[in-house]
Amino acid sequence: MVRTVIESKTKTAVIGFDAPFCVIGERINPTGRKKLAAELEAGDFSTVEKDALEQVACGAMVLDVNAGVVYNSNPNPNETEPPLMRQVLELVQRLVDVPLCIDSSVPAALEEGLRVAEGRPLLNSVTGEEERLEAILPLVKKYNVPVVAISNDDTGISEDPDVRFSVAKKIVERAADFGIPAHDIVVDPLMMPVGAMATAGLQVFALVRKLREALGVHTTCGASHVSFGLPNRLGINAAFLPMAIQAGMTSAIMNPTRAVEMEAVAAANMLMDNDPNGGAWIGLSRVIDATKDGTSFADAARTAASAASAGGGRGGRRRRRG
Amino acid sequence: MVRTVIESKTKTAVIGFDAPFCVIGERINPTGRKKLAAELEAGDFSTVEKDALEQVACGAMVLDVNAGVVYNSNPNPNETEPPLMRQVLELVQRLVDVPLCIDSSVPAALEEGLRVAEGRPLLNSVTGEEERLEAILPLVKKYNVPVVAISNDDTGISEDPDVRFSVAKKIVERAADFGIPAHDIVVDPLMMPVGAMATAGLQVFALVRKLREALGVHTTCGASHVSFGLPNRLGINAAFLPMAIQAGMTSAIMNPTRAVEMEAVAAANMLMDNDPNGGAWIGLSRVIDATKDGTSFADAARTAASAASAGGGRGGRRRRRG
Repeated sequence: MVRTVIESKTKTAVIGFDAPFCVIGERINPTGRKKLAAELEAGDFSTVEKDALEQVACGAMVLDVNAGVVYNSNPNPNETEPPLMRQVLELVQRLVDVPLCIDSSVPAALEEGLRVAEGRPLLNSVTGEEERLEAILPLVKKYNVPVVAISNDDTGISEDPDVRFSVAKKIVERAADFGIPAHDIVVDPLMMPVGAMATAGLQVFALVRKLREALGVHTTCGASHVSFGLPNRLGINAAFLPMAIQAGMTSAIMNPTRAVEMEAVAAANMLMDNDPNGGAWIGLSRVIDATKDGTSFADAARTAASAASAGGGRGGRRRRRG
Repeated sequence: MVRTVIESKTKTAVIGFDAPFCVIGERINPTGRKKLAAELEAGDFSTVEKDALEQVACGAMVLDVNAGVVYNSNPNPNETEPPLMRQVLELVQRLVDVPLCIDSSVPAALEEGLRVAEGRPLLNSVTGEEERLEAILPLVKKYNVPVVAISNDDTGISEDPDVRFSVAKKIVERAADFGIPAHDIVVDPLMMPVGAMATAGLQVFALVRKLREALGVHTTCGASHVSFGLPNRLGINAAFLPMAIQAGMTSAIMNPTRAVEMEAVAAANMLMDNDPNGGAWIGLSRVIDATKDGTSFADAARTAASAASAGGGRGGRRRRRG
């Protein structure tokens, strides 16, 4: 069975059809978070620290790290983003021992991240754009890392799922030319908001199945996009994740501090026979029970993890703290 | 596209691949409800009344009616169940105008139900047992109604999904001999508890797909069986329903008064492009918002339905009250 292996200094995360769904924590990303962007420009990393610890406590298996701040003092991200990526990655690696996903649209920041990251990080991302293919695939090969492949190209993002499949196929083929195997490519088929495009869910479910069957690649997506613009977004997200998992999606970039989404993923893992003896489900159920008095999900998860490690027992899925 | 049509006096419910998931309310059933059984034997129908009104308010499209009480005063259900079925059905039909599902293991009670029911009820159920096939299929033909086909036979319930598929196939073929079309058969592939059989979810997802592709039949199940014996059962149910819907399941016998399960179904409908413009999702989201102050789901749904009908507008899915 095809597996994508991501590593930190000592930990391994696996994206696999026979593995629990790989939750990639999305929080360390200043895009759309003005306060975080301002903090990072000012050299304040307190939110990054909190986000790293909380996400891992809540069950993130991989942390996405994006340092895409456009500095007020210097609008050239080619100059500012690589050193910021280095700083953030070094900090996160000191705090938590989980595999990382180096996320940038600036090739120099991706390469700086690859230099700094311990283990075998996931690179995020390459697209089907010629310039990106030429810039990123050599890095993927040189550092022998897996890569997220986003299915848009020089013509933009197509609303036609067949075109998005073709773009993914092109990336897989171009990667093969570089000697990069399909199991090191994780395709993001591009989730459209279902409120804007009624067929968006059906498209992604069909694409995930086709990408798996025809190309043998794993898939991921920015899960919360699906509910953009709708009321009760978490309700949509919590149904979308199990449906995508049932269709064969094997990872998502998502917010692991939201109990309802993590609960949906854990239940789906059990229903896909990827939770032996229900240990992870039972552990998570205890954590959710502990939130009923108003305790936050992250705090309840931390308490459960401490109790499990103190008692030498196991409280469901393994959680790490920095 | 194959559709199963169920009717009350004036309303139609459809089970279809291109229709919203058909929620069949399970509450009017004394099995495992000792208090209700005692009430029914004593001629007290107050719980039935409440269950009928509440389930329809919460969005049930069809109500299952089971009168399987074993009387203390007379242990022969062949004598006691047909008149009780008649009474309960007549009561429910007076209160609410939704299609009904006549549910019994006693053929005489099924036939009495067929005599009393207005419109085109769903019959629940036939199995692959010879005696049941011979007793039930002639009723299905005579009254021209759709029927739930449970995939067990004289050898019992097989843990092998291929055997369960074969039983379903046999029922479909035997029904064809009676002139009953496949679109009037709704197969229950028998959901096992995932806590007892780790592959139970995978089995049902595969069976649903195969039953649809190979036999062209719709499927249903007792959805809450999936979580039997596990903690936080609603969390499992709320992930199972969207996954089953994504696999192609088109109805379930379930408890519509549980907001979390109805929310999962409504979100899945939207993600399957069976909620034009998201009207049902938006309506349900308003109802769920209204429960945040402690109002029950049923009461919030009733209030929303009243407001929508008073204003001449629509509050998402249409809800009926008796």
